[in-house]
Amino acid sequence: MSNPSPARQNEKQLTWRQRWYEIIFEADTPAGKLFDVILLVAILLSVVVVMCESVGSIREEHPILLFRAEWFFTLLFTVEYVVRIICAPRPLRYICSLYGVVDLLAILPTYIILLPFFQGERAQRLAVIRALRLLRAFRIFKLAHMLSEATALREAIWAARAKIAVFISFVLIAVVIVGSAMHLIEGGPDSTVESTSAEGGPDTATQPTGFDSIPQSMYWAIVTMTTVGYGDVSPTTPLGKALAACMMILGYCMIIVPTGIVSAELAQGRGKDISTQVCTECMAEGHDADAVHCKYCGTKLHHS
Amino acid sequence: MSNPSPARQNEKQLTWRQRWYEIIFEADTPAGKLFDVILLVAILLSVVVVMCESVGSIREEHPILLFRAEWFFTLLFTVEYVVRIICAPRPLRYICSLYGVVDLLAILPTYIILLPFFQGERAQRLAVIRALRLLRAFRIFKLAHMLSEATALREAIWAARAKIAVFISFVLIAVVIVGSAMHLIEGGPDSTVESTSAEGGPDTATQPTGFDSIPQSMYWAIVTMTTVGYGDVSPTTPLGKALAACMMILGYCMIIVPTGIVSAELAQGRGKDISTQVCTECMAEGHDADAVHCKYCGTKLHHS
Amino acid sequence: MSNPSPARQNEKQLTWRQRWYEIIFEADTPAGKLFDVILLVAILLSVVVVMCESVGSIREEHPILLFRAEWFFTLLFTVEYVVRIICAPRPLRYICSLYGVVDLLAILPTYIILLPFFQGERAQRLAVIRALRLLRAFRIFKLAHMLSEATALREAIWAARAKIAVFISFVLIAVVIVGSAMHLIEGGPDSTVESTSAEGGPDTATQPTGFDSIPQSMYWAIVTMTTVGYGDVSPTTPLGKALAACMMILGYCMIIVPTGIVSAELAQGRGKDISTQVCTECMAEGHDADAVHCKYCGTKLHHS
Amino acid sequence: MSNPSPARQNEKQLTWRQRWYEIIFEADTPAGKLFDVILLVAILLSVVVVMCESVGSIREEHPILLFRAEWFFTLLFTVEYVVRIICAPRPLRYICSLYGVVDLLAILPTYIILLPFFQGERAQRLAVIRALRLLRAFRIFKLAHMLSEATALREAIWAARAKIAVFISFVLIAVVIVGSAMHLIEGGPDSTVESTSAEGGPDTATQPTGFDSIPQSMYWAIVTMTTVGYGDVSPTTPLGKALAACMMILGYCMIIVPTGIVSAELAQGRGKDISTQVCTECMAEGHDADAVHCKYCGTKLHHS
Repeated sequence: MSNPSPARQNEKQLTWRQRWYEIIFEADTPAGKLFDVILLVAILLSVVVVMCESVGSIREEHPILLFRAEWFFTLLFTVEYVVRIICAPRPLRYICSLYGVVDLLAILPTYIILLPFFQGERAQRLAVIRALRLLRAFRIFKLAHMLSEATALREAIWAARAKIAVFISFVLIAVVIVGSAMHLIEGGPDSTVESTSAEGGPDTATQPTGFDSIPQSMYWAIVTMTTVGYGDVSPTTPLGKALAACMMILGYCMIIVPTGIVSAELAQGRGKDISTQVCTECMAEGHDADAVHCKYCGTKLHHS
Repeated sequence: MSNPSPARQNEKQLTWRQRWYEIIFEADTPAGKLFDVILLVAILLSVVVVMCESVGSIREEHPILLFRAEWFFTLLFTVEYVVRIICAPRPLRYICSLYGVVDLLAILPTYIILLPFFQGERAQRLAVIRALRLLRAFRIFKLAHMLSEATALREAIWAARAKIAVFISFVLIAVVIVGSAMHLIEGGPDSTVESTSAEGGPDTATQPTGFDSIPQSMYWAIVTMTTVGYGDVSPTTPLGKALAACMMILGYCMIIVPTGIVSAELAQGRGKDISTQVCTECMAEGHDADAVHCKYCGTKLHHS
Repeated sequence: MSNPSPARQNEKQLTWRQRWYEIIFEADTPAGKLFDVILLVAILLSVVVVMCESVGSIREEHPILLFRAEWFFTLLFTVEYVVRIICAPRPLRYICSLYGVVDLLAILPTYIILLPFFQGERAQRLAVIRALRLLRAFRIFKLAHMLSEATALREAIWAARAKIAVFISFVLIAVVIVGSAMHLIEGGPDSTVESTSAEGGPDTATQPTGFDSIPQSMYWAIVTMTTVGYGDVSPTTPLGKALAACMMILGYCMIIVPTGIVSAELAQGRGKDISTQVCTECMAEGHDADAVHCKYCGTKLHHS
Repeated sequence: MSNPSPARQNEKQLTWRQRWYEIIFEADTPAGKLFDVILLVAILLSVVVVMCESVGSIREEHPILLFRAEWFFTLLFTVEYVVRIICAPRPLRYICSLYGVVDLLAILPTYIILLPFFQGERAQRLAVIRALRLLRAFRIFKLAHMLSEATALREAIWAARAKIAVFISFVLIAVVIVGSAMHLIEGGPDSTVESTSAEGGPDTATQPTGFDSIPQSMYWAIVTMTTVGYGDVSPTTPLGKALAACMMILGYCMIIVPTGIVSAELAQGRGKDISTQVCTECMAEGHDADAVHCKYCGTKLHHS
């Protein structure tokens, strides 16, 4: 507190590269914070532009406007990308970082369609990859106390990673087994056999039940176990319905497991508002972080 | 207890405005409580009337009855609104409050259709906005100990607001990215290109897959991630199904995060096993149930 | 322990009514337990019979068998009902109790179809009301330690009843408001106006969108908020889809609230494995239920 | 630590059977771990082969490749099965164990289709039963600290088994009752009566509503209560919709119960803030972290 960092003290003597570095890469100074907010708004607007382009009616009404907005944001982000490379003390490190790759991917699609051998309009839509840049929003949260909350969340999930891995393994194995079982039960007539026999017409062969292959049955099993339940594939035979019903109740019971895991993990992290200090008199531990005296013998505690 | 509030003592000397204020705005006196219950029943009935009006068969059978009931409740609520303005010590403050605005909006729609330049019958249905007045029900709960429960709930949600904000941001970014990806994978042929080329017929162009634009794909992504799963839009290509399956499992895992957050928050509030004793020396509260000495000043606590 | 209850001691001297009362109404003796298990199996079988009767193919194949089984169980339950009335010390009290009413309702449907003025076959299916008798299963659990678990569950839900009531009120008000809004947005053309104007054909009038009335929209809102999502009704306009997406995320966030409530309530109940005894020496509380000595000063505790 | 197990010390003197036993059945040695990983990869690949076989297009393109892969894995697993039997100290015990039965079932289907009296191609697909062998994956987790996590999960679920049983019983009884009620409300006209009366055409009889029998209605009830909501069966009458809406809200409220149970159970296991100190007098463990005296014998505890 008494001795500020030299970077702050000699701000006037900073080179323009250092000054821009502070503005672009850090978010502690007012200028840096302002830059981040403006950037976030620009990213949001550019994502909206890509969205509008994908809607047929809007694209036909305002083709020029969208084209110009698209190139405006592309050039803006290109300039930002170049400045970032110039300002970064170690440019290669930035280019290879997650944010660097995302920044590059965000401007590439617009340039790609200029190339003569790549005229597909759909490449244009790849520009939506710049939605990934919205992840920068989390950098601004860094300023507020949201960071600690996000950290608590990340730590709870990280602490529960082994339990979640066990859980996901179990779900995936269940999906494979149930998917295969449903394929056996609900899968239509054996198409290999049927195609050789002349009695089956093409009508029955082209009528898919949605359980025609194991991967499709697994898709159904995932749709069902996660309780999404589109209904594009659903069992029709009594046996299939019975198995599906069992699986739903199983899935219903299973949703409680990971929820309980994370709840307990977070509750534990929350409950630990206890300082590590030990009473010098009675050696009692477990004092609250705001305790001044030992709650058992009344001795004054020495705060660390 | 020994000295009752003057308002109670001199009830007879109150002006009629003060008396009506107590009845209409407060719910502590028997008259005020009765008024609130009657009002709630009236609001419920008026909502039922608007509902009945929206059902074609009922509307055709009893057009006169519904018309009269509609105007009866509108006039009733108009009188109530006027009385509230008259009784309120600071009428403008009431008019601009949330309840004041809702009270006004609840009576406007019926009057609007009287205007010559606004003959749409649908305006009538706006009267359903008076369902918002049901929020007054929470005022009656104020009498019971439900208020403290509602407060505990609100505090738990408020304490978890940062975590929930981080979570919602993450969900929305995931929706944008997955929605865009599904648009690229499942979106039909490029309609701009197709419409200029003469080979595509209008049949293929008018056959929407539900992923024709990014907003529609985002709608699908939200329907899927929240496990609602209407099935009006569902992937058809193998790649799309695989991506959808991954997204479902992701969404399934994600539902555990906010649940755990609120559980831990509520458990913390509940788990505070704190005695009601007050330190006789420094008047500090919030001691643990097993504390012997005040943790702030070291004075021995007197257990109740 | 030293003086057994007189009922046990003088079992031989009991009248047959008292003996049968013990067997039928209580489940503490081996005979009573056996009776309850046999009864439960009979109830399960009778429910299966009613189920089989409702399946067309089974009903047509074994009409005589089902008819006999139906009457066998009806007569069996009738005998049981009569014996219960005879044995009960206060028959009226049993008849008016929940179990008494259910027992009566379980045998009535089969007799009803004998009446000349009630020949609907469907009355037969009312016999499925005897599924309610399965609730007797909980009486058998009484023997095991499941009762305490069920009690813990019931107490947790009961303790959270105020919070759950607040929550349900909020959900229902949200359903009314969102349902009304969707009716305004998605509800087809105003049928009253349309029917008077001659330009609309009957085709558009008979094409329901699923949002034709507020109750139907509320049905949709409930289907969506509970994430069931049949898909029989789903929004088609962009505005409706946007509102539906908002509502889904709201509903997704809301599912966490009651879960957290009950989790916290159960966690509290679990954590309370603490006896109410107070140390006579240091007056410390919060000792574990299995503690012998005060954990603060070492004085021996007097167990209650 | 000072005296290693003889098996380790005299590893060179081990017979080949004992050496192979260590490699195949145990996973503590590097060789055993490597064997388990290779086996897991082989199982994964064999499951992928069975999946590919079930997809028509892949099966028609590479029939020879799939046939060879199928037999390669079958023979590989056969050799492994035989070696396991030879190496196991008590072969019968292995054969009758869960893993032994699964290992046998995994190789049987391929041999079955060789039999002259069993030419159905679908038998081939039974080979997918080898997906069950993926459960071996949990053996590898044994090496990491995942085992303790899986144990914590299993213990939490086991501790909550009584509550979950009560819960499942309640859900099933609710499914039977609601399913029956919906069958009464939504079930089409009585087909037995209708078929005898000549006025009903075959069109109405062959038009199933999805509530034609109680088992089908129960299937719908399970689909709805678990919030899967396919939409292949959905109520059409107003009364049925109202009942379905009530049931959904009931189901929505019920999902919180088991979640809360497991959360509380896990939180309790976690929350045991118990010190590792042992009473020097009575050797009792499990003292609270803030205990000063042993709660069983009153001896003063020595804090670590």
